Amino acid sequence: MLGLMQGWPLLCHQVIDHAATFHGGRKVITRSVEGPIVETTYSEVRARSLKVAQRLEKDGIRLGDRVATLAWNTWRHLECWYGIMGIGAIYHTVNPRLFPEQIVWIVNHAEDRMMFVDLTFVPLVEKIADKLPTIERYVILTDRAHMPQTALKNAVAYEDWIGEVDGDFAWKAFDENTAAGMCYTSGTTGHPKGVLYSHRSNVLHAMIAAMPDSMNASSRDVILPVVPMFHANCWGLALTAPMVGAAMVMPGAKMDGASIYELLDTYKVTFTAAVPTIWLMLLQDLEKTGGKLPHLNRVVIGGSACPRAMTKTFQDVYGVDVIHAWGMTEMSPLGSLCTLKPEYAALTGDARLDVQMKQGHPPFGVEMKIADDAGKDLPWDGKTFGRLKVRGPAVSKGYYKVDDDPVFEDNGWFDTGDVATMDPYGYMQIVDRNKDVIKSGGEWISTIDLENLAVGHPKVAEAAAIGVVHPKWDERPLLVVVLKKGETATKEEILAFMQGKVAKWWMPDDVVFVDEIPHTATGKIQKMTLRKQFEGYRLPTVQAAE
Amino acid sequence: MLGLMQGWPLLCHQVIDHAATFHGGRKVITRSVEGPIVETTYSEVRARSLKVAQRLEKDGIRLGDRVATLAWNTWRHLECWYGIMGIGAIYHTVNPRLFPEQIVWIVNHAEDRMMFVDLTFVPLVEKIADKLPTIERYVILTDRAHMPQTALKNAVAYEDWIGEVDGDFAWKAFDENTAAGMCYTSGTTGHPKGVLYSHRSNVLHAMIAAMPDSMNASSRDVILPVVPMFHANCWGLALTAPMVGAAMVMPGAKMDGASIYELLDTYKVTFTAAVPTIWLMLLQDLEKTGGKLPHLNRVVIGGSACPRAMTKTFQDVYGVDVIHAWGMTEMSPLGSLCTLKPEYAALTGDARLDVQMKQGHPPFGVEMKIADDAGKDLPWDGKTFGRLKVRGPAVSKGYYKVDDDPVFEDNGWFDTGDVATMDPYGYMQIVDRNKDVIKSGGEWISTIDLENLAVGHPKVAEAAAIGVVHPKWDERPLLVVVLKKGETATKEEILAFMQGKVAKWWMPDDVVFVDEIPHTATGKIQKMTLRKQFEGYRLPTVQAAE
Repeated sequence: MLGLMQGWPLLCHQVIDHAATFHGGRKVITRSVEGPIVETTYSEVRARSLKVAQRLEKDGIRLGDRVATLAWNTWRHLECWYGIMGIGAIYHTVNPRLFPEQIVWIVNHAEDRMMFVDLTFVPLVEKIADKLPTIERYVILTDRAHMPQTALKNAVAYEDWIGEVDGDFAWKAFDENTAAGMCYTSGTTGHPKGVLYSHRSNVLHAMIAAMPDSMNASSRDVILPVVPMFHANCWGLALTAPMVGAAMVMPGAKMDGASIYELLDTYKVTFTAAVPTIWLMLLQDLEKTGGKLPHLNRVVIGGSACPRAMTKTFQDVYGVDVIHAWGMTEMSPLGSLCTLKPEYAALTGDARLDVQMKQGHPPFGVEMKIADDAGKDLPWDGKTFGRLKVRGPAVSKGYYKVDDDPVFEDNGWFDTGDVATMDPYGYMQIVDRNKDVIKSGGEWISTIDLENLAVGHPKVAEAAAIGVVHPKWDERPLLVVVLKKGETATKEEILAFMQGKVAKWWMPDDVVFVDEIPHTATGKIQKMTLRKQFEGYRLPTVQAAE
Repeated sequence: MLGLMQGWPLLCHQVIDHAATFHGGRKVITRSVEGPIVETTYSEVRARSLKVAQRLEKDGIRLGDRVATLAWNTWRHLECWYGIMGIGAIYHTVNPRLFPEQIVWIVNHAEDRMMFVDLTFVPLVEKIADKLPTIERYVILTDRAHMPQTALKNAVAYEDWIGEVDGDFAWKAFDENTAAGMCYTSGTTGHPKGVLYSHRSNVLHAMIAAMPDSMNASSRDVILPVVPMFHANCWGLALTAPMVGAAMVMPGAKMDGASIYELLDTYKVTFTAAVPTIWLMLLQDLEKTGGKLPHLNRVVIGGSACPRAMTKTFQDVYGVDVIHAWGMTEMSPLGSLCTLKPEYAALTGDARLDVQMKQGHPPFGVEMKIADDAGKDLPWDGKTFGRLKVRGPAVSKGYYKVDDDPVFEDNGWFDTGDVATMDPYGYMQIVDRNKDVIKSGGEWISTIDLENLAVGHPKVAEAAAIGVVHPKWDERPLLVVVLKKGETATKEEILAFMQGKVAKWWMPDDVVFVDEIPHTATGKIQKMTLRKQFEGYRLPTVQAAE
């Protein structure tokens, strides 16, 4: 028997409708790409989103069509986002930091029909436009006064473009499982893979993100999403903020410490979110200027592990709570947030920081477990490593135009590719990437832990740990080190520094010094290249074992 | 094009699974019907819910079958709730405060196959059992030691009953729109009507209820739902609390002021919810004993309008925030909560209380509007009255086994039967029931306002305002008054007291004194009976108009 409740589909445009109706005067403040601060409201954003929708339709864009954006976080980008989704088309937020050839590959793979481009990226797009045959029109996110001379196909200034319609338009109706947005993940190997969000997954994710033990977002918040809309679905904030009626402050193109500080301070931001790199810049700026953060209540830090010192500084020096978080593009992206359950809530000092080094616990709507290579569930003791697997309504079940990727298992679990521990209260901590973890005698060694330890040595600039074949233990750790400019050091010196700080059997079997460690476009160490480089490397411990 | 996200249906048993997995040790504390306090955990509740599910199946209960409960808020009732839903059967929470003949009607209409009964209600059920032919078995919610002698069909003690299975059982899989629960609304006229919740509506409602601007429920909360599970779906708390991992304190059969205070104080309850009557008893007890509420952070008050003095006392004397709320059984039940948006957040004193007299604003997931009798939307000026209409994924689209009830409109709006104002920030305030509001010369007069004003007169015990036919104005107000014992008063005295406190054209055309005003089983004034009683009543103003 079915229930007798309304068939009210979860559609993204209902989010901006709710914001416009019940929080219509709430502000959306942007540092525009042109320079000045621009203030608008949810009511106005909705009205202009409707124009975007109406104008897209006039340009022939229909249900299921992909529309690319190459843009910073601005009110115009937000309008495009809702306008695109409101007719059942699919926003494809392209990451401008990718290599140009990757952008070309992605846009062609998605077969995007139009592209919204910020002024910043016009030169970049001009260089690759001849390789983007599916794009029928470029809309430059500016007004006529700032419109550059460009030969881009059918190029038009956004304000002129939406000015051609009257906004007398209604959102389209469609199934809640209709695709709403697209985001490509750039792995360290192979082609990027397209994640295809649905309206349902976006709405549920936004609700999950707003919950008190997630980001705790309310109408009294002023939210500054530094994390870009092109990065992992903006961590859901482009939907969560309007859903709860929080004001938004959009940083546009400027994300240096001083610029972010100016927004935080001027607009009394209560809540912000970004990767550690951003916060490093902010904290350095604050140290220099003596600035304080009296309005900021909490900061979500994810994307990569948040350093302990950063958490400590935010909390002890500036009185800002840190919420360490973990997610993946494939998860919309939130997987876990390190808010404090009652078992941990009373902790202070180092004990509290110990917990906050974990990536946290999943909210309702994210199932999580750790398993060994054979798929057997592993204990939640805070020590045992396992493959981290997740399941939920905002977790991918496949990549766009990719058949049967092995990360999607039959019983619905998505293999995150991460290796993690779970503690007795359900707090997860990332230990390593599965392809990087060193498997020594059936036990797993975290390369991240070894690297974090090694870079603590005053002479070490960067370090990478990789597994090298070993006849007895399968693999043993090799530590690859880049010394700081002008420094010299010996293997023994580095190992002596590490001694006693990790389990004895975790200690690297050898240390090699190199001038450079290879990186990806987004700054991650290319472990695979490194492993190739050291293929066949003979560890000094091998002879002993033979 | 559909998104590529997991088909993770929203099912209620996922809520208790999440609680058991990520908040497994969190306590559920009950004042048992037998007397002693009983402590259990979400992990244990889930394990025993699985036994309920397994045992129900052994008794032949299947997908779609209705299973009644006649029970207080206890851990056992919670286990039944999840156990019943976990096999796709439907919990039917019967309100024991209804007249016995109403209970008979409801159980027969629902065709319940089994009934879980608290010890308190065994005598009641024994009296009506011969009129309940569909019930195949009565499970008494107790253990063998407390099992009463009873001739109820196949009666068995709950603990013995679930003791017959081992709990090695898995939840059933089914569509998220499958019916999960049933609750009958008892109007003032006609038969009760069955609302049929789905798994999807229950889960979405629980998420909506937990949001920061709704009940703001987190894992650090200790929640005491005084509102019974048989009253309007327990305001969602039987799902919201486990969903967020909050501890629960269940009051069992004792809801007097002293008993509630003991639980609030002993278990450091942070959040509680009930109708004004309950809080009146608590506040009276506190005044007598000098008790304080140092742990309690907030209290949700709904079911009927929260008196201003109650809000003031909670906030000023006890430091407890009041969240005035409004909902209906047909809405799962939350419709709006009076949490403070930034426009109102800084208010203090009377200005704050003025806002808190409103029933609040709807969260995302509840659409709301006011319209005139012709269906035209009315302005949100905080003054204009209109029929209150709602829409959303946790709002009913029909009643069980009732065809085409006119409250369900074609375009999906549910006519709540309430008359309300909306202010510019989207705060709703209930003015009257639509069938009670007096329509005078095309304008509407609130009978509730007239009654509240009249009972402020020191000699008035109770007052009811009704519309009486008038040749010129269609209807004019007649005030029906019950004086306090031993008092006498004149019409002129009462009207003089009201003069200047309402708009002139709202003033009653006449006042009549009666010994008694008729009430429903749940204590509401039977306006329809009263209107019948005064049908053809000739107002003194009629002659002037003729």
